[in-house]
Amino acid sequence: MILLYTEASPFARKCRLCIAELGAGQDIALRDVGAVSPLAANAAASAQAPLGKIPVLVRPGQAALYDSPVICEYLDAVWQGSLFPADGEARWRALALQALADGAMETAVALRYEAVFRGNGSGDDPWVVRQTARLTSAVDAMARAVADFAPAPTIGELSVASALGYLDLRFEEIAWRRGQAALAAWFDSFAARPSMQSTAPTL
Amino acid sequence: MILLYTEASPFARKCRLCIAELGAGQDIALRDVGAVSPLAANAAASAQAPLGKIPVLVRPGQAALYDSPVICEYLDAVWQGSLFPADGEARWRALALQALADGAMETAVALRYEAVFRGNGSGDDPWVVRQTARLTSAVDAMARAVADFAPAPTIGELSVASALGYLDLRFEEIAWRRGQAALAAWFDSFAARPSMQSTAPTL
Repeated sequence: MILLYTEASPFARKCRLCIAELGAGQDIALRDVGAVSPLAANAAASAQAPLGKIPVLVRPGQAALYDSPVICEYLDAVWQGSLFPADGEARWRALALQALADGAMETAVALRYEAVFRGNGSGDDPWVVRQTARLTSAVDAMARAVADFAPAPTIGELSVASALGYLDLRFEEIAWRRGQAALAAWFDSFAARPSMQSTAPTL
Repeated sequence: MILLYTEASPFARKCRLCIAELGAGQDIALRDVGAVSPLAANAAASAQAPLGKIPVLVRPGQAALYDSPVICEYLDAVWQGSLFPADGEARWRALALQALADGAMETAVALRYEAVFRGNGSGDDPWVVRQTARLTSAVDAMARAVADFAPAPTIGELSVASALGYLDLRFEEIAWRRGQAALAAWFDSFAARPSMQSTAPTL
């Protein structure tokens, strides 16, 4: 199998974290497809996935899988992991936490695109103001949830780690650690895991 | 339980389709929170979900659930439906089809926001051109998949129906039926289901 990714994508990092936590690295090749822009198709991504987004999991003889929640659940099933609780409130907690972190990533990536491709990073623009507020609100919700984080990480905790790692990479000005000591302490401890170390963006 | 929704949202319609197909309508109240804009917070949505997006499923005494894939899987589990195949390729097919349709909805909603809130609906703008191409590519992929659509609908088919219904509502100019006779025939037949009739947008 081949995971199509780009170095900076937090959604791709989430999949790479799953691969590392599952010990599946020897069986899955990583292929960096380079930049994915909202203004032009990435040929490698578009060849495997109609929406042209990454990550995509290319499977020999079977349909490619996307997007990241589907890829992660598939990997967890094939490698018989415990990243996705089978049922009950534990499952909904993990999936809702993933949705929260994925929503934060989507908002952050949209803000990044707006700044890079349209030159609009202004704190006065109503769209930038509202999207920044959503991002801050999502971090607040992660901070409220941290007391219930699972000791053995689920897809929820891996997603939060990917989202916060992306904020560190691209949004230093948001300073998400300010006033969030418990979340920052959790992240800094989590960041020492081998899966986090081996997937840290080198940009 | 209460589902927060807006009439036009294709993501909310997907959840309402699940409720109708599961026969859960008597136990779930629907609450229309009005417009959700990328420029200002919707108070009702933001009170229940940090990202302020709809749909949100409000559960008495338990955490609210979002976004739509989590809500739909939860409803299917509680009502013991068969919208989410338990495992194997059937599950990955259904989830990837949902991801395809959700991606089409996200792209369409973003194009709609751009046109309504920024007055940018121009076919010359590189962002509009690229996002329209992604939408067309997603419809092409749905058309290729239609031969494998499940006779008893899964979350994949419900998602495709929601996405195509949204294109009919907001993107007449895209004319998705053109050259897609098989997909159009499937949709027109599917649209006769009571779940589709009872959730058709009345705008």
